[in-house]
Amino acid sequence: MTHHQPQNRYDYDVIVIGAGHAGTEAAAAAARLGAKTALLTTNLDTVGQMSCNPAIGGVAKGQIVREVDALGGLMGEAIDATGIQFRMLNRRKGPAMHSPRAQADKKAYQNHIKWQIESQSNLDLRQETVEDLLTEPITEADQSAREHAQLAGHKIVGVRVRGDAVYYASAVILTTGTFLQAIMHTGEAQSAGGRAGEGTTTGISGALKRLGFQLERFKTGTPPRLNARTIDYSRLEIQPGDEDPQPFSFLTDAITTEQLPCHIAHTNEAVHDLIRANLSRAPMYSGQIDSRGPRYCPSIEDKVVRFADKTSHQLFLEPEGFQTHEIYVNGISTSLPRDVQDAMFRLIPGLEKASIMRYGYAVEYDYCPPTQLWPHLESKAVCGLFFAGQINGTTGYEEAAGQGLIAGLNAARTIAGRSPWVPSRQDAYLGVLVDDLVTAGTDEPYRMFTSRAEYRLLLRQDNADRRLTPQGDELGLISTLRREKFQDKVAQIQRGRELLHQGRVQGTPADVYLRRPEVTWDVICESVPELQSLDSNAAEQCCIDIKYAGYIDRQQLDVDKQNRLSEKRIPASFNYDRIVTLRNEAREKFTRVRPLSLAQAKRISGITPADIALVLAHLERKS
Amino acid sequence: MTHHQPQNRYDYDVIVIGAGHAGTEAAAAAARLGAKTALLTTNLDTVGQMSCNPAIGGVAKGQIVREVDALGGLMGEAIDATGIQFRMLNRRKGPAMHSPRAQADKKAYQNHIKWQIESQSNLDLRQETVEDLLTEPITEADQSAREHAQLAGHKIVGVRVRGDAVYYASAVILTTGTFLQAIMHTGEAQSAGGRAGEGTTTGISGALKRLGFQLERFKTGTPPRLNARTIDYSRLEIQPGDEDPQPFSFLTDAITTEQLPCHIAHTNEAVHDLIRANLSRAPMYSGQIDSRGPRYCPSIEDKVVRFADKTSHQLFLEPEGFQTHEIYVNGISTSLPRDVQDAMFRLIPGLEKASIMRYGYAVEYDYCPPTQLWPHLESKAVCGLFFAGQINGTTGYEEAAGQGLIAGLNAARTIAGRSPWVPSRQDAYLGVLVDDLVTAGTDEPYRMFTSRAEYRLLLRQDNADRRLTPQGDELGLISTLRREKFQDKVAQIQRGRELLHQGRVQGTPADVYLRRPEVTWDVICESVPELQSLDSNAAEQCCIDIKYAGYIDRQQLDVDKQNRLSEKRIPASFNYDRIVTLRNEAREKFTRVRPLSLAQAKRISGITPADIALVLAHLERKS
Repeated sequence: MTHHQPQNRYDYDVIVIGAGHAGTEAAAAAARLGAKTALLTTNLDTVGQMSCNPAIGGVAKGQIVREVDALGGLMGEAIDATGIQFRMLNRRKGPAMHSPRAQADKKAYQNHIKWQIESQSNLDLRQETVEDLLTEPITEADQSAREHAQLAGHKIVGVRVRGDAVYYASAVILTTGTFLQAIMHTGEAQSAGGRAGEGTTTGISGALKRLGFQLERFKTGTPPRLNARTIDYSRLEIQPGDEDPQPFSFLTDAITTEQLPCHIAHTNEAVHDLIRANLSRAPMYSGQIDSRGPRYCPSIEDKVVRFADKTSHQLFLEPEGFQTHEIYVNGISTSLPRDVQDAMFRLIPGLEKASIMRYGYAVEYDYCPPTQLWPHLESKAVCGLFFAGQINGTTGYEEAAGQGLIAGLNAARTIAGRSPWVPSRQDAYLGVLVDDLVTAGTDEPYRMFTSRAEYRLLLRQDNADRRLTPQGDELGLISTLRREKFQDKVAQIQRGRELLHQGRVQGTPADVYLRRPEVTWDVICESVPELQSLDSNAAEQCCIDIKYAGYIDRQQLDVDKQNRLSEKRIPASFNYDRIVTLRNEAREKFTRVRPLSLAQAKRISGITPADIALVLAHLERKS
Repeated sequence: MTHHQPQNRYDYDVIVIGAGHAGTEAAAAAARLGAKTALLTTNLDTVGQMSCNPAIGGVAKGQIVREVDALGGLMGEAIDATGIQFRMLNRRKGPAMHSPRAQADKKAYQNHIKWQIESQSNLDLRQETVEDLLTEPITEADQSAREHAQLAGHKIVGVRVRGDAVYYASAVILTTGTFLQAIMHTGEAQSAGGRAGEGTTTGISGALKRLGFQLERFKTGTPPRLNARTIDYSRLEIQPGDEDPQPFSFLTDAITTEQLPCHIAHTNEAVHDLIRANLSRAPMYSGQIDSRGPRYCPSIEDKVVRFADKTSHQLFLEPEGFQTHEIYVNGISTSLPRDVQDAMFRLIPGLEKASIMRYGYAVEYDYCPPTQLWPHLESKAVCGLFFAGQINGTTGYEEAAGQGLIAGLNAARTIAGRSPWVPSRQDAYLGVLVDDLVTAGTDEPYRMFTSRAEYRLLLRQDNADRRLTPQGDELGLISTLRREKFQDKVAQIQRGRELLHQGRVQGTPADVYLRRPEVTWDVICESVPELQSLDSNAAEQCCIDIKYAGYIDRQQLDVDKQNRLSEKRIPASFNYDRIVTLRNEAREKFTRVRPLSLAQAKRISGITPADIALVLAHLERKS
C-alpha cells in the first residue's frame, strides 16, 4: 500500500492512542521499558479523566489496582495522592475479600496522572487526533521472525493524525474508550460524542473494518451530577470513610489528604412509578438503543424493571472534589429524558430542590471483540497492533488500567524482539482478566469479580507485591525505590517467620499458636515482643500466611495441577485442520481463539475433554 | 413565530451562553443582582479556561481587572488565589502606568472560577449546547415600555439547546469566544473547532444572521506548548516575579501562593530565515486566512515580516502551573506548519531538544461588529440580547471579563425595568472599552491600551475601588465584606489627609511638604508618626492624591467639560432624517451608531463640529 507523503513525520517505537486509564498505563509501561513512546490524545486537558464515577477500586477492582501498582503502574499512587475518602470493603470477611476503594478528587487525580506522564522519560505526550492506522502487508521475513506473525495479514507501521502528519512506529496501542463512532442518548435526544461536551472518532473504526476486524456495539451510561449547594444534607445519611485509610500503592506509607464524607439517599415507590410510566421514552426500552450495557452497573430504569419488587434503591452522593460543588449520584445512571430526570429528584427526600448540572446519558460505541487478540493483547490480524480498555469490551477504570499496562509492556517487548509476558490466572486478577477476554470474549461489558478468579485466596490485595513485583522487576518495570522497599518487606516477613517459629506462647511455638482462630496478632506480640519491630504490612503477611496456611496450601495444589496443563503449549499457528477427527465446533472455536496452552484450550466454552485429548495426542505425536 | 413544543423547558430571568471570562462574570453579576440566572456551556470542564496565555493583567489590562474587582467581579480574587508569579509592570513610571500582571496556575485558576460560579446563589451552571436563539416580534407595548425597544425588530425569549429542551428568559447574553463557525489552521491543515481538541458552534451564527445581524470574521492565534523536561534552562535567562507580590483584588490582603520564575529565550537570524523560507506555507500569507488578527499580539511570522530588521525576538517561557510540565511560549504564536514549528525550536538556544506538546495554530471565528450594540451591550436589533467578549471583536481575558460584567449587570437591570448603567470614559477603562466598541467599532481584534484613555491619570489601578465601588454598591454588586473594607479604607484616607494637613515637617504643613518631588512618604512619617498606623493602601492613596494633585486637578477640569457634553442626551430612537441639512455621511453614521449623548456623537470617526452643532440645535429646538 502506498501512502501520500506527508510533510510531517515523527518516528517512535510505540504509539499509544488515547490517554485515559488504559492509555496512560500503556504509555508509561512502554516508556519505562525504554521504548521511545508517543501518547496521542485529542485533548491534553482530558488526560486521565474519570468519565463516570469519581472513585477507584472496589471489590476485585481494588485488587487489580494493587496489581497494577505492584508492576510499577500509575493508578495506585495517583489515587493515594488525591483520594478524599478511603474504605476497605468487606473488612469483616476473610483477607481474600478485602477490597480497597477510594473516592477521588476528580480534577486532582487527572492532574496527577498528567503530571506523571509528562515527567516520564522516553515518553512524549502530544495533542493529536488519530484519523487512520497505517499498515503494510506482512512479509515472509516477518513471519519467520515471529510466531505471532504467521497468522497476521498486516503489520502496523504507524498512524496518520489530523493535520497532514504521520507517526511511524512498529507497535501501536489502541485505547479509544467510548469514543469510536460514539452516540449519546438522553431520552429521545441523540448526539454524536463519546463523552458529554466532547466529540467522537470515526477514522479508526473505518481502518479497523478495512483491516478485517469485527466491530460490535456496547453501551454504557452515567448518572446526573447535582450541585451540592442545592441538596438538603440534613435529610441524608452520612457515610464517612475509614478512620485508618489504607493506601493503594505499596509505595505509599500513609494517606495524608483530608477526608470527606459521602451521603446516602434513597429512591422510593413514587420515583419507581414515575420511571415505569416513562419507560417507553427510555432509549434502552424504546428500541432506540439495542446494544448491551454493563449488567452489574445497571441504569435506574433497569433496576426498576429487573428488581420490580424492590421499593427503594440506595443512592450514594459522592463529592467530585474539594473545590467543586459537583456531586456524582452513584446508583442512578440513566438515559431517561431530561424532564424525567428532573422529576425523579423532586421525589427523593433531601434532593427535592437539587439542581442538575449535567444530565445523565447513555453512550453507544464500537468495541472490538477480544477473541481477536492474543493474551498479551496484540491483535492476531495485524502484527504490532495492540488493544486495551473499553475497546476490548470491558468496563471500569481498573480493568482498563490493567490491560493498558499489559499492552504497553508487551508492545515494548515485541519491538525489542522479546517474547510476550502475561501473568497467569494463578498469578493475578490481571491474568484472569486477559485470559477471560481472549478465551471467552464477552457479549456484555466485562467487569472483574472475585468470583471470576479460581484462586482468589492466593490473589489477595495484600500480597499483590509478593505475587508480581519480582516478575515486574525482571521485566524492567520496577523503580529502585520500589525494589528496595519490596526487598525490605520480604526480609521483614522472613524475620517475622523466624521469630514466630522460635518464639513460644504458653509453651507452644508461636506460629502454631497463631493458627488458632481466636488468637490475634496482638496476643502473639505480647509473648514475642520482637515482632513489634516489624512493619505493619510485613506483620500482616506473616499473620495471613500462617492463619490461612491450610486453605492457601490446598489452593496451591490446584495451581500446580493447573500449571502442568498450562505448560502444554500449543503453537500460535497450530493447524487444527490437521486433526481430522476433531469436531467441527471444536475446530472452529480453536481456530478462532487460538489457545496457547492446553489449559487455555480447556477453558473455551463448549470444548469437551475429548477435544482436549485429541489436541494433546496430536501435540505429543509431533514432539 | 411558533416553535415546536419541547418536553423540557426551564424558566430563567437571564441566560448566559458560554462560561469563559466574559460568561462567568456576566452570570455572576446578573445573579448577584438577584436575577435567576442560567450559565450554559458545552463542557463544564472548561469553565474559566485560559485558552491562550496563562496570565492575567498587563498594561491597561491589569487596570481593567482592578475595575472588575472593584465592581464585585470574579477575576481579581481568582488570580490572587492561583497566581504563580506577580509583577507590577512600569513600576518606575508614574502611578497611572503601574499595571499589575500575574502568571496563573492555569488549572487552579479554572477550578477557582468554576467553584465561585457553583457557589453563587441564583445561578445554575449547566452543561448545555445552545443550538438556536428564540425570539418574538417586538410589540407596541414593548416599544412604549422601553426606549431601547423602539428600534428593535425582535425581542429574545430564550434559547433552544441540544436534546429537545428550551430555556426561556427575557435576557440572553452571548459570550461565544472563538467558537462561532470556528476553523483552526496549522500550515496547510485546517479543521473545524474553536480551541484545539474542541468543537465549534454553528446554530448561533445562523440565528444571528436570520435576525439581521452583520457577522464578520476575525482570527487569533496561539503558540506551541513545550514540555519543560525537554528545555535546557541553564542556557536561558531567569525572570523572577516581584519580591512583594501585589494582589489584584481589593479584598486580598496578601499573596500567599508559592511563586515560580519564568525564563527568557531568544529567536535569531536562523529562525527568521527559516520562517521567511516558509512564509508561503503560512496561512496568513498563503491567502488561506484573510481575516484580521490582533495587531499587538502578532504571530512570529508577522513579526519577522513587519520588523524585518530585527535580528532577534524575546520569548517568555511561562509555566502553566505547579503540577504540569507544560510551558507556554509567549512571543511565538504561529500558524506555520508543524514541521516549521519543530524546526524553529531546534534553532533556538536552550530549546533545541524541546518537545512540543501542543502545536500552535490560528483560529478564525465569527464576531458581531459591536456598533450593532448599545453602550450597555444590548443589541439594537433584538431587545434583551446582549453580547460580551470576543463576539464583540475584542481580544483578551480582561476585556472579556469587563464586558461580561457590564452585560450581566445590565441584563439584570433591564429585566427589572431599570435603566442601563455603564461607566463613562471618565470613570473607568471599562467605560473607554464599551464606548470605543459601540461608537467606533473595530476592524481588528480590539485590545485595551492606556493610550485609549483620555484621563488615564484618573483611571489608575490603585484607585479603581474609589472610582467604582460606591457605584457598584448602589447597583447591588457589592458584598458586605467589600463594602466594609472599602468604607474602612475611605475613613483611613480621610484620617490620613487630616493628619497630613495638621502635621508639620520643618515648619511646613506635611501635605504641602509632601508635594516636593524628592520627598517620600517615609520622610513624612518620621515627622508625623501617627501616619504609620494607616493601612498601606490608604497611605498610598493619600500620597498619590497629594503628589499628583496638580495633574489630577487639571485632568478633572477636562472631565468636567466633557461631562457637560455627555449630559446632552440624544434619545435612542432620535430620527436623524428630520435634520434635513445634515450631511449624508453624518446621517448614515449617526443612524448606525445611535450615540446616546453629544459627547459620544462627537467621537464617531468622520463627524465634524458642524454635524454636532446641527444635532445640538435640533435637540434644543425640540426641548
